[in-house]
Amino acid sequence: MSSPLRLGIAGLGTVGAGVVKIVRQKAALLSARSGRMVEITAVSARNRDKDRGVPLDSYAWEDDPVALAKRDDVDVFIELMGGSDGPAKAATEAALKAGKDVVTANKALLAHHGQALAELAEANGCVLRFEAAVAGGIPIIKSLTEGLAGNEIKRVMGVMNGTCNYILTRMEATGQGYEALFAEADKLGYLEADPNLDVGGIDAGHKLSLLSAIAFGTQVDFDGVELEGIQRVALEDIRQAADMGYRIKLLGVARMTGRGLEQSMAPCLVPANSPLGQLEGGTNMVVVEGDQVGQVVLRGAGAGEGPTASAVMGDVMDIARGLRMTTFGQPATTLVKSTSARAAAPAAYYLRMALMDKPGALAKVATVLGEAGVSIYRMRQYDHVDNSAPVLIVTHKTTRATLDEALTRMGSTGVLSSDPVALRIEEV
Amino acid sequence: MSSPLRLGIAGLGTVGAGVVKIVRQKAALLSARSGRMVEITAVSARNRDKDRGVPLDSYAWEDDPVALAKRDDVDVFIELMGGSDGPAKAATEAALKAGKDVVTANKALLAHHGQALAELAEANGCVLRFEAAVAGGIPIIKSLTEGLAGNEIKRVMGVMNGTCNYILTRMEATGQGYEALFAEADKLGYLEADPNLDVGGIDAGHKLSLLSAIAFGTQVDFDGVELEGIQRVALEDIRQAADMGYRIKLLGVARMTGRGLEQSMAPCLVPANSPLGQLEGGTNMVVVEGDQVGQVVLRGAGAGEGPTASAVMGDVMDIARGLRMTTFGQPATTLVKSTSARAAAPAAYYLRMALMDKPGALAKVATVLGEAGVSIYRMRQYDHVDNSAPVLIVTHKTTRATLDEALTRMGSTGVLSSDPVALRIEEV
Repeated sequence: MSSPLRLGIAGLGTVGAGVVKIVRQKAALLSARSGRMVEITAVSARNRDKDRGVPLDSYAWEDDPVALAKRDDVDVFIELMGGSDGPAKAATEAALKAGKDVVTANKALLAHHGQALAELAEANGCVLRFEAAVAGGIPIIKSLTEGLAGNEIKRVMGVMNGTCNYILTRMEATGQGYEALFAEADKLGYLEADPNLDVGGIDAGHKLSLLSAIAFGTQVDFDGVELEGIQRVALEDIRQAADMGYRIKLLGVARMTGRGLEQSMAPCLVPANSPLGQLEGGTNMVVVEGDQVGQVVLRGAGAGEGPTASAVMGDVMDIARGLRMTTFGQPATTLVKSTSARAAAPAAYYLRMALMDKPGALAKVATVLGEAGVSIYRMRQYDHVDNSAPVLIVTHKTTRATLDEALTRMGSTGVLSSDPVALRIEEV
Repeated sequence: MSSPLRLGIAGLGTVGAGVVKIVRQKAALLSARSGRMVEITAVSARNRDKDRGVPLDSYAWEDDPVALAKRDDVDVFIELMGGSDGPAKAATEAALKAGKDVVTANKALLAHHGQALAELAEANGCVLRFEAAVAGGIPIIKSLTEGLAGNEIKRVMGVMNGTCNYILTRMEATGQGYEALFAEADKLGYLEADPNLDVGGIDAGHKLSLLSAIAFGTQVDFDGVELEGIQRVALEDIRQAADMGYRIKLLGVARMTGRGLEQSMAPCLVPANSPLGQLEGGTNMVVVEGDQVGQVVLRGAGAGEGPTASAVMGDVMDIARGLRMTTFGQPATTLVKSTSARAAAPAAYYLRMALMDKPGALAKVATVLGEAGVSIYRMRQYDHVDNSAPVLIVTHKTTRATLDEALTRMGSTGVLSSDPVALRIEEV
């Protein structure tokens, strides 16, 4: 049996504690599978005195994660601190420079610095792996990078923020509005300290940007992800969507178009009877479309101690077994800088507007859409309430640019009592 | 860039031709991802003259797959001939003995000889990989072996024969019986030359035995898989199941129990609103339950040129990238011989019987079940037709042994006009 693989863990929150538990409780299983012992030598966290429910006495303690990352008795630096910069970045860089392999669950770090860190890892002969950063326990990074490596990837889609999916599915189930369910999610502890990371789509956008890099061989481009949160999704939208056989999901979509890489993370309508449409609560799902394999769907817990620790350990076991993979599926220096194409693929859209109680208002809306070249598939107007009438429109396929132009023009007609909501209908 | 990886392909049916296409058409993509050229040097098949829609002139031809397997200019032997013995086995052994890595899509070969072949591979420092043998394009072997390696696996379930799922879902959709849909599947070319491989559950049982070995660290034990085909599933069963909120699937289930490894491939009732229950047509699905990750579901095409070739190429790309994995997730010599536990876990069962038109017949059935210790959750009797009355029973949880004893006793009461059908209700 080879020498033990020695782990240094920085960050002892839920996931860190979960990793410690697995390494302690499943030593025999891990060594049977990898052919070597997997052990923890040192740990680091902000507060040494906190009780984390796992014994830490046998591990060296470092207050400074950078010092941990550089320790001679650490082979793999496990970064579970979070944050796109600061200590997480400093310690990851220090580890790679010191020739340590790195396993991280930090999507923000990689969404912002993935290219530089991957290059640094490769320059130092290290691996930098991040299965836990995307969709929790679902082995999507491995599946996409390795299992589907014989495919040209056509599209990657994912529901990758459990909190948003919880809010949206609870809105439908309970008939309560966004505000009430946001408060409920908050009370249950489902929200990040900055809730905009969740409901604004930023967290899920980070994840999408990492999947895109692997799928299309491009440098991580989080700035190229069009982000739209779920804050403006109304109960009415969910009901109308259901009526038409759709569900609304915060859906990430990435595809390579003739004009460049299109990445969006936005509320979309998906068929209610599709795997994505059927996804309830906090579960995550990623759909990969390859030219050979067709559609592959992976579903599982997107967060939580066990699932995230499982993903971390998947990466650790790869390293223990000597399976050394590039970060994004090909040498980082060969990843190309993509052009960002905003919503290039034509799609049908769902529009909700509030019309002022003026004669000819509805005709004006229809005219403006028609003049802009947006063709209407169906349209419904409801009774006026407080001088405002809801109008719901489903368009035929159009580009987002054409639609946006129409919406801009419509804004200057003076017949709308609030900004329209436009949601893409994604064919899945 | 490293030296090219040279493939020798034995078997040029649909999948073989698909692999040739990928290697020819995606050379740039494959080499960008793996860091080396992937090329075909030699091929073998039964009939040299057949037009397979792909140019083969530039490859050496071998009539004998064993000769192909031993060629000096072949690094990876790709076995796509099929069959558990004969040329497939001989050539695979020859390749491994000659120090070649092997990629195969042959579930029958591995279900019967997996342990010996894995040991042979390891003794010769070769890898033997088989992603394409289980669930077509779904990267389940990789996910289970590598991605979920930090988990103790609790249960593996799968719908892994598209033909059976096609027949069962079409029975429900069209209201036609098994015989009619079997004929339809036959006409569409969905059946193996020996249809019992499909509808008898053998093909899917082969696949399950391979998943079990990985999940539980046991030697492949196909003989330990309890097999039951879908031939006796009647339209009535599908309708009754639907009525109770279930669907009937040919479901593989493997779990380690206190009494040993339980493996079964049999028609089961699963909740209609679960991912397994929602699976339509020829699609495959595998559900893995790990102690850390919870439930992970993978879904995709279980057969066909592109999906199967995609899986073959996933294995080839691993080898090209230097990712060298054991066959079943740990050294073959450390896999333990499992005790086979027949349906050890208690479950509720759905029973369908045909009762003769005799006074007290129903009471007798209820009495026999009660005396055997099988408690009835619900029971329905329908009108007699031709002196036979259908009786449908759902039991409370019981063991299969208890149930079988009750059914045996019932057989000797003389009130049944045919053998009862018993289907497990699997909680998923």
